[in-house]
Amino acid sequence: MTEFFLPELPRLLPVAYHPKATQIEIRSNGWVRGQLGTCFAREDDLLLFLRQRNGLYGPLTVPHADEQRALDVTDWYQYVTVIDSSVSDRSSLGADEADARVVFADIMDDFRSNRDAPGDLPYSRAGQDLWRRISPGFSRAQIQRFADALESFLRGCATEIGFKQADRVPDYETCMAIRMDSFGCQFIRLMTEYAADVDMTGHETLLADVHMHGMRQMILVNDLLSWRKEHAQGDKMTLVRVFIEREGLLLQQAIDGLCELVEHHESAYLAARDQLLHGPHGSRADIRRYLSGLDHLIGGSQEFEYLTPRYFGDGYVWDGSTSGWLSLTAPVTRFRPRPGGDTDPHISAAGSTDQSVPSLTRG
Amino acid sequence: MTEFFLPELPRLLPVAYHPKATQIEIRSNGWVRGQLGTCFAREDDLLLFLRQRNGLYGPLTVPHADEQRALDVTDWYQYVTVIDSSVSDRSSLGADEADARVVFADIMDDFRSNRDAPGDLPYSRAGQDLWRRISPGFSRAQIQRFADALESFLRGCATEIGFKQADRVPDYETCMAIRMDSFGCQFIRLMTEYAADVDMTGHETLLADVHMHGMRQMILVNDLLSWRKEHAQGDKMTLVRVFIEREGLLLQQAIDGLCELVEHHESAYLAARDQLLHGPHGSRADIRRYLSGLDHLIGGSQEFEYLTPRYFGDGYVWDGSTSGWLSLTAPVTRFRPRPGGDTDPHISAAGSTDQSVPSLTRG
Repeated sequence: MTEFFLPELPRLLPVAYHPKATQIEIRSNGWVRGQLGTCFAREDDLLLFLRQRNGLYGPLTVPHADEQRALDVTDWYQYVTVIDSSVSDRSSLGADEADARVVFADIMDDFRSNRDAPGDLPYSRAGQDLWRRISPGFSRAQIQRFADALESFLRGCATEIGFKQADRVPDYETCMAIRMDSFGCQFIRLMTEYAADVDMTGHETLLADVHMHGMRQMILVNDLLSWRKEHAQGDKMTLVRVFIEREGLLLQQAIDGLCELVEHHESAYLAARDQLLHGPHGSRADIRRYLSGLDHLIGGSQEFEYLTPRYFGDGYVWDGSTSGWLSLTAPVTRFRPRPGGDTDPHISAAGSTDQSVPSLTRG
Repeated sequence: MTEFFLPELPRLLPVAYHPKATQIEIRSNGWVRGQLGTCFAREDDLLLFLRQRNGLYGPLTVPHADEQRALDVTDWYQYVTVIDSSVSDRSSLGADEADARVVFADIMDDFRSNRDAPGDLPYSRAGQDLWRRISPGFSRAQIQRFADALESFLRGCATEIGFKQADRVPDYETCMAIRMDSFGCQFIRLMTEYAADVDMTGHETLLADVHMHGMRQMILVNDLLSWRKEHAQGDKMTLVRVFIEREGLLLQQAIDGLCELVEHHESAYLAARDQLLHGPHGSRADIRRYLSGLDHLIGGSQEFEYLTPRYFGDGYVWDGSTSGWLSLTAPVTRFRPRPGGDTDPHISAAGSTDQSVPSLTRG
């Protein structure tokens, strides 16, 4: 099958853009060019990355943070997304798991040591820049978690490379566990704390249900909306492929099954959050701020995934659609009202089948 | 000469993005697809237009308008930019001045008549949609000016087609006068009034100096920043070409001369504005709101022109730079710290000349 239908998802969580979203994206793009430009083989590859609008992930997930923290979070997410892109690229970090683990160990050494002269890797220099900006806003416990979070993420990335090299598809729970790392769930929570200026260290048990359901919803939505890209890149660590190759479902059945799971975990997240809000800790300002942050994290992450050319093809521009047929083969796809592959949908949608009458002067 | 140096411009006016800039751009892109999609020959041409970020011109020029008015203004500017693009396209409206004037007359008939069944042209339907949304916010005098403004714009566009067909370059004052029409200076002022919810009808004399210097600054900046595009499309109606072909200057001399004029008119605008603010009408709330709107119009328009791929090539992503060397031949250019044409600047800028060591695993 070369296309599938994506139904409307519940979208019960709030979506907001930081009031300075555009400026933050532009400034962050400047930071990526300056700090990480040499991680890209060519200027064109850097521009391809910047066209993915990855600098909007921060403004969408921490819409109420003060401007400097929103920028720090934005740069952080761009940083890990550059690494993630390299991991998916067989001509770069994705070439070999063992080599990647060596590089990742170097990054971690520099990140943890915070030494004056970091290694030569741009990832080390950029990581240290982020460390220096973000860690003063953290408690000692959060600083430790920050380094651990990056390590978990890099470990998840390396594991994904290994599965891809070995052409192995994991089972559902294995996949979900690795995706928790490679999706960056630990630092996602830390960035939410940083933006809300709270410290949730020690509250893991209290927050276990909101985290579990919230993060599963995010990973499920991500795997649904990124399927076109993951499919093209032959990635093994995606729940769509797990459903097809391990559970024997057809593509559309896998999509529909994942959509049901999104609904389930989104509802369960909301129930767990409400239970917390109405429980003995529900009046604490820091808990409330953090939960509001999680709401926006989940809603904003999904919004980003609808809009990014990273998932729908370089050149895509989102027009606000959230449901429709998606092609796996078109260089640029979009949510279309009916199936039909790569034909020009906007012309036939308007009722005309005559594609030889293209422009106003002749129309 | 295939490149030129653009110096820093004064940028003495405020720049702000509407707090909902991104959402407005996305919604407006959906409006363009729905209303004007068939004006584009192919889906790819529509996407090319949407990638130019024209939906940010509104959020940048009316950053303090309420959300619905900001959206109306944004759709309006996209509408006239679609027309402007078609005028620059020799396979579309730009093919022939007389044909274009016939099409424009139809658009005006539908725009003015506000009849229930507008003509078949998508431009007529979209224009009527805008008319119905915007004119209820206008006084009777403004409504008349609104139709006149569209007519002036279309007249300016048609005149530009004629100059291009005849391969004629006008003198400076002729060019400036036609550009006042084709840049939409009348509706630009009306959109500023609409956003600020004021009626400046009858104040033309009072505002003559701020308008004259403000609009000249905007046209000069536009002609500077759009030169790469205008050059590629062979447009005659641009002040850069006037300086080169009528005044005999070299490209860099023309650029430098225009920059001096930008400084002059920007300072003169500020002086005229301040004189008004400190004069007998300076305490009127509507005048103050309108002048603040003009400030943001001028500052926001310039910001847009730095960021748009319309001027710097499809695929360009702005990183915040505002000065540097610009190539006229690179498919995608950007502000570079030194001349050097189409080479990969981000690699040599980082000190390495070895372009065979592209990515992290090998670096």
